[in-house]
Amino acid sequence: MDKKAIVLLSGGLDSTTVLAIAKSMNYQVYALSFDYGQRHRVELEAAARVADAQSVSEHRVINLDMRALGGSALTADIDVPKNRSIDENASEIPVTYVPARNTVFLAYALAWAETLKLTDIFIGVNALDYSGYPDCRPEFIEAFEKMANLATKEGVEGKVKLKIHAPLINLSKAEIIIQGLELGVNYRQTSSCYDPSDSGIPCEACDSCILRAKGFKDAGTQDPLIN
Amino acid sequence: MDKKAIVLLSGGLDSTTVLAIAKSMNYQVYALSFDYGQRHRVELEAAARVADAQSVSEHRVINLDMRALGGSALTADIDVPKNRSIDENASEIPVTYVPARNTVFLAYALAWAETLKLTDIFIGVNALDYSGYPDCRPEFIEAFEKMANLATKEGVEGKVKLKIHAPLINLSKAEIIIQGLELGVNYRQTSSCYDPSDSGIPCEACDSCILRAKGFKDAGTQDPLIN
Repeated sequence: MDKKAIVLLSGGLDSTTVLAIAKSMNYQVYALSFDYGQRHRVELEAAARVADAQSVSEHRVINLDMRALGGSALTADIDVPKNRSIDENASEIPVTYVPARNTVFLAYALAWAETLKLTDIFIGVNALDYSGYPDCRPEFIEAFEKMANLATKEGVEGKVKLKIHAPLINLSKAEIIIQGLELGVNYRQTSSCYDPSDSGIPCEACDSCILRAKGFKDAGTQDPLIN
Repeated sequence: MDKKAIVLLSGGLDSTTVLAIAKSMNYQVYALSFDYGQRHRVELEAAARVADAQSVSEHRVINLDMRALGGSALTADIDVPKNRSIDENASEIPVTYVPARNTVFLAYALAWAETLKLTDIFIGVNALDYSGYPDCRPEFIEAFEKMANLATKEGVEGKVKLKIHAPLINLSKAEIIIQGLELGVNYRQTSSCYDPSDSGIPCEACDSCILRAKGFKDAGTQDPLIN
């Protein structure tokens, strides 16, 4: 087994499932997380737990100076909205949107891929549940992949083809959870809340908590994080 | 005058000329520089001098955790090559190549553009003198622009069209210098050397110094940095 891949790992439900999928495809995994001044730092602790439990080859946390760019309730001084309905949630780009976040994350993954001389990058974007985020759509992922193959030495020489894997892109949250459970994911280790307590207890009221709760309900199973 | 643009400003000869070009096109300029653990920190001081001299609206320096990604003589523990011929220089991707650097720089510019609600980004890439860098070619810039227009809310809604300007892309170093001088650029303020002294004196032996010297010679003028 010497297939290697980078997995973007936030420590949330989606990226944790993606890590399990990459492992099930026999990839040696290099997990990449970002410390971008997010409110929910509990997520980074979750990422470390997940990386450890799933025996990644390396887990690297990059410091991102995103706070300086502002514009999001996840990083700036804007309140995280609470108790919105799923409809409100889907109708517009949420204030929790971080400008160009996936572009920046994938750019770093591309740099690390070039350094590690690997060609597979996994990302847990999901077009259905987060339709408000433009950089979660298949067209964006395809355009990034095309650009990436023009950005690197090996891509330009046609020696390798860099591939961005987005295995969740057309799945519902319930389908993601079902697939993860089949692969043995322990969702107790993950963190989805945008505004958890310091000890990691989810608020159960932010958009992310509401979507997670709906996902577990639709999957017909209990979220191990919720008593 | 309320046209606004981001200019990626390293403090080198090329990006300084691009800043002057953007100003001559009546853009209010937001200059963006990166502190990525480069050896030649003198460059950041040059960027600050240039930004001040050309009266930018804001100069922002983002801390980039690129050192962790390794792979380059500009950031890692690899010697900067000296006294290579221009031919050697052009024949392969230099060890001074930073993996995916322009992808990461442009991703940040895209994030800032979205925050500032502007649609024009200027970058001083140059396909002729640096043919060894894949992310300095027109195909890469076009692919990034296409991706960027799929990454953002306004781009997706077709309300705006994000434009990556690369006005130097097909110019020789001499043509860049001639254009800059016509626009009143003071190249004494810039720094091009990959391995300058602490007080900013260029080594006159690295690839960048050699290309700069050839550019001034071909332009038929004296580099104000060299006595």
